[in-house]
Formats: sequence, C-alpha cells, structure tokens
Amino acid sequence: MSEPFDPATLVYDARGLIPAIAQDATSGEVLMMAWMNARAVAETLASGRVTYWSRSRAELWRKGDTSGHIQRLKELRVDCDRDCLLLSVEQTGAACHTNRRSCFYTAIIEGEEVEMIAPETS
Amino acid sequence: MSEPFDPATLVYDARGLIPAIAQDATSGEVLMMAWMNARAVAETLASGRVTYWSRSRAELWRKGDTSGHIQRLKELRVDCDRDCLLLSVEQTGAACHTNRRSCFYTAIIEGEEVEMIAPETS
Repeated sequence: MSEPFDPATLVYDARGLIPAIAQDATSGEVLMMAWMNARAVAETLASGRVTYWSRSRAELWRKGDTSGHIQRLKELRVDCDRDCLLLSVEQTGAACHTNRRSCFYTAIIEGEEVEMIAPETS
Repeated sequence: MSEPFDPATLVYDARGLIPAIAQDATSGEVLMMAWMNARAVAETLASGRVTYWSRSRAELWRKGDTSGHIQRLKELRVDCDRDCLLLSVEQTGAACHTNRRSCFYTAIIEGEEVEMIAPETS
C-alpha cells in the first residue's frame, strides 16, 4: 500500500511554497515552522539535511549552514490535503535564531505573553 | 516578564491569516495545521474551544461543531516572528476529516508514500 512520491504532487500556495513543521524526533517538541518549495522538498529528501526556502533571502536555506544548527531528517510526513509537511528531525543546537531550542517560546497565559524558554548559553 | 497579548500584534499574511499547528497536549503528536484570523485567535482564547478560519467556507470554524471532534485549548504559543501559532490541545476523537487521529498519516519512506495511521473505527 505505497506509491512513489513526487514533490510536484504537493499543494503549494501562490508563491510556490508549502509550510513545513519541524518536530524533535526524540522529545516531540515542535521546534519551528518554515517554508519549502518543490526543490527544497526534493533536496531535503535527497540529502537528509533539512532545506527550506528563505522568503527574506529568496534562496534555498539549508538549515545550519551558517549557524551549525543543522536538522537531520528522520521522517517526512504529508498531511491529508497535501498542503502541509511535518518533519521529524534530529536538531543540533538551537532551532531558533534567538538561540532558543524552539521558536515557540512565548505562551499566552491569562491574556499575558510569558517567555517560557530561555536562550541557550553555550 | 510578561505583557498583555493582543491578537492584532500577530503577523498575518495577505489574506489576514496565520498558520496554527495543533499538538496533542498529552502525547505530543502533531495533529493538524489550519489557519486563523485575528477573530479566530480571540475566540479561541476567550472560549477555550479551538476556532479556525475555514478558507473553503470563508467563515469561522469552531472545530468539532459538526463532527463532535472538538479541541480544548490547553496553551497557545506564538513563535519568534509572531507569524505562526502552536496550540496545545485536548483532542476529542479524530483531528482529521478522514477520521484519523492526525492529518499527518502519510510518510515518505525511501521515495514511497506509506500510510502510517488507519482511520478510527468507532
């Protein structure tokens, strides 16, 4: 009950992008959400190194090439509508550019924004 | 180290929407990704019932109103760029409209699409 996967069969938005959620393969923590185009999906699968599309730089962004905070792909999943990806990853260092483990470090608690995760010190 | 939260301060796309990832509060499983507008964010926080914006129906979609598969909000988090939300939820029944626990039931394994989660039978 399997069939060959073709990144072209995913549903991309008007910019040719699909959201990709990165989840820590060990802890289950959701680390970040970024965007991929079809080429980023193909390169991620081919290399095992998670590669997004940087909207600000308008170029492929192989996570960790400058920071060292790479993501190794353990498994890629596609959702029912084929318009969102879930990546199970081995995260080296902090996923967030603020040097926090996860980008989701701000919780809304009783109407207040509360910082739940401190930057890593190493 | 907290400040009042205002949904208007989030970063919405050109359609006025922000992606929202729902994660099972107990298991850590990522259940689905859908979209919210500022009103959906406000209603979710006020009611504790997760409410998305349905792009196909162009209306607020209080999850579970027709299916019974409601999501109770345990915690809402905002990411570093304020352009993505992470919802920790108590999920009743299946999150996916295909009656699977999670929408992310298809894995890409060695270039093949493999179904990892069967529909629930109840």
